[in-house]
Amino acid sequence: MYKTIDEANAAVIERLKAARPNWIDVRPGKECVPMLGDGMNLLHAGPPIEWADMTGPMKGAVLGAALFEGWAETKEEAAKLAETGKIKFTPCHLVDAVGPMGGITSANMPMIVVKNAVHGNQSYCNLNEGIGKVMRFGAFEGEVQTRLAWMRDTLGPILSDTLRQIENGIDLTALMAQGITMGDEFHQRNIATSALLLKVLAPKILDTKFSTEAQKSVLEFLGRTDQFYLNIAMAYCKCAMDAGAEIEAGSVVTALTRNGRDFAIRVSGLGKEWFTAPVNTPVGLFFTGYSQDDANPDIGDSAITEAFGVGGAAMIAAPGVTRFVGAGGFSDALEVSEEMREIYLDSNPAMPIPTWDFQGACIGLDIRRVVETGITPLINTGIAHREPGIGQVGAGTVRAPLACFEKALEALARKQGVR
Amino acid sequence: MYKTIDEANAAVIERLKAARPNWIDVRPGKECVPMLGDGMNLLHAGPPIEWADMTGPMKGAVLGAALFEGWAETKEEAAKLAETGKIKFTPCHLVDAVGPMGGITSANMPMIVVKNAVHGNQSYCNLNEGIGKVMRFGAFEGEVQTRLAWMRDTLGPILSDTLRQIENGIDLTALMAQGITMGDEFHQRNIATSALLLKVLAPKILDTKFSTEAQKSVLEFLGRTDQFYLNIAMAYCKCAMDAGAEIEAGSVVTALTRNGRDFAIRVSGLGKEWFTAPVNTPVGLFFTGYSQDDANPDIGDSAITEAFGVGGAAMIAAPGVTRFVGAGGFSDALEVSEEMREIYLDSNPAMPIPTWDFQGACIGLDIRRVVETGITPLINTGIAHREPGIGQVGAGTVRAPLACFEKALEALARKQGVR
Repeated sequence: MYKTIDEANAAVIERLKAARPNWIDVRPGKECVPMLGDGMNLLHAGPPIEWADMTGPMKGAVLGAALFEGWAETKEEAAKLAETGKIKFTPCHLVDAVGPMGGITSANMPMIVVKNAVHGNQSYCNLNEGIGKVMRFGAFEGEVQTRLAWMRDTLGPILSDTLRQIENGIDLTALMAQGITMGDEFHQRNIATSALLLKVLAPKILDTKFSTEAQKSVLEFLGRTDQFYLNIAMAYCKCAMDAGAEIEAGSVVTALTRNGRDFAIRVSGLGKEWFTAPVNTPVGLFFTGYSQDDANPDIGDSAITEAFGVGGAAMIAAPGVTRFVGAGGFSDALEVSEEMREIYLDSNPAMPIPTWDFQGACIGLDIRRVVETGITPLINTGIAHREPGIGQVGAGTVRAPLACFEKALEALARKQGVR
Repeated sequence: MYKTIDEANAAVIERLKAARPNWIDVRPGKECVPMLGDGMNLLHAGPPIEWADMTGPMKGAVLGAALFEGWAETKEEAAKLAETGKIKFTPCHLVDAVGPMGGITSANMPMIVVKNAVHGNQSYCNLNEGIGKVMRFGAFEGEVQTRLAWMRDTLGPILSDTLRQIENGIDLTALMAQGITMGDEFHQRNIATSALLLKVLAPKILDTKFSTEAQKSVLEFLGRTDQFYLNIAMAYCKCAMDAGAEIEAGSVVTALTRNGRDFAIRVSGLGKEWFTAPVNTPVGLFFTGYSQDDANPDIGDSAITEAFGVGGAAMIAAPGVTRFVGAGGFSDALEVSEEMREIYLDSNPAMPIPTWDFQGACIGLDIRRVVETGITPLINTGIAHREPGIGQVGAGTVRAPLACFEKALEALARKQGVR
């Protein structure tokens, strides 16, 4: 159908640019992903992985989900269910979903529902839990369980009732076009877009049929959760990338993800096949009392933001992030963005970056360019403790391993009959 | 007390940096400025001016205030009260206040109350009315009156009840330290800080004893009023500058303001004396149907932001503004900020600007440097139509006239016995 890879890539990028993923609802996981309602099924981040191979944060989150769903009364019982194969694991990406860090998502966790108004496809992601002891970083007891219950009973239902007041949902592209002018790169920094979102949601929350106390708890949570928008940005990027993947040709990356062991990529011309290589470990700044030795290897579906061309690729939009992740000042942000420009094929006119003289964010990550230049995508990321039960210990940057791009390019060459 | 001007300036700047103006309340004008409760008194922007000399936007706002206060039933009656000297006019700056554009403020308009937690002084400013037909730009009928009544009866009282829940008020320095990393320069752009403020206010608004409908109308107004923070920023800067002025020595500018005819400055070593020169007319971009010919000369107390060192002096923090005001791209923002750096004595560590490699915003505008270099402060400003009743027609930039700095420097030299 496409005469050249360049032609196919142009078609993929056209869809990435044309996609309009709108936030339309929040529903329980089992309604978004029916298999979650059928026995002990959990979603996880990254390419397929079994319990024995999972790293600490993902294991901790599995225990948390088993306790939350009432499958086990204690962490020991929960661990046994996992060890004995009673709990089944499926990658988020296989069911139109993404999940941050461990990415563990279960039947009764509320999920963001994003619908592409142009191409019709939907994507899902769980809700951001805020900071401190949170399940996505591997904590699973006490306040983690209290918060998950509140998210199930209050936050999710109130957001659903709020969003259903808005015809066709919230235009996330417009929101992000504003947010990227306000220092957000949508991976490590989402404070502006989270606040812009609150402007839209706050008055409508008062129109939901919930108690004032419940409404107030939601306004407080949204007000203090600066990364609330991250999970929405992930669903947005997933929705756009899936629309691009439907072209089924070309050398554009359609997903970047990690399960704590393997980094994996998908490519537009290679369908749903994963090309993997061992993950690197992020380097960055650590909270007091923690150090690089505590860092878990790279984990989470959140690198879907870099697949779309924001996050680390848009560092210049968010020079504040460079300090937070220990990556220098403004000139360093500019330098790494210029470097990223070499491996993406185009600019996204919907996301002009004032600090880059209004150039659009990168779009269309090309495996050929990655292999030719040896430049691998830079990913902005949170850092989890390597042991279950502790949580976030820092934030930093990490590079995708070159090997997965090389493997994918070889596969593409074989498919094209070049080798 | 100070051996040299440099020593005095250092003392002024120390106070500017140490000031912590917190937003503690919103009260009717007559409670903030008692003279407003005594007959037909109005505050206006800039140095002293009488009705006959006022330009269109200020005259329009006077008519609006007279109608709002019930002093007149028609604009003709209102104009007669002004022409015949029944309405008395006082500069905002004489009563610890500031006002945007016309700056017209009357007894029953709610005012922001900001209190300096370190030095104890208070400042006041009316509330931002949003965009479109608004009194500050000279519109005075229909929706202007409806909105002013709603601000008096609903917005002001709800904000007061909300703020009184917060011990010592809202720490505006912390808010602005965040906002300046998010593309706000606090004069032409306040969208980020307005949104950050909403995060703090929203849950507390639900705890006020007003109807859900009234609370919702406030959340909607705050959500759509991107310049809401401007008037708070003005009160903040006024409060800090007044604290600096108490040193009563040195060559640091303590106020920049304009009444539509004259630009006026005050200087730390020259007390409350105004040094004036004819204002320039802003140049910029105009809304559809309007052009440079419609532009009123420079007007408003909002240049207090540039006196403090933000606004035009912090253009690099808000490269988005350069496009809105027709002043080019990122490199132009950087260039003008570097130029401004030459006339300010120091950097404000409370306001680090990521896009300036985390240099603090300018602070301590020195009349000696202005006269030596010939560089005059650049001001980001809204542009009012020159006729009363129309409103805002654009946004642009304007330079303070050099002559007021020259006059002030001569006066300072005389006072020091140099001439």
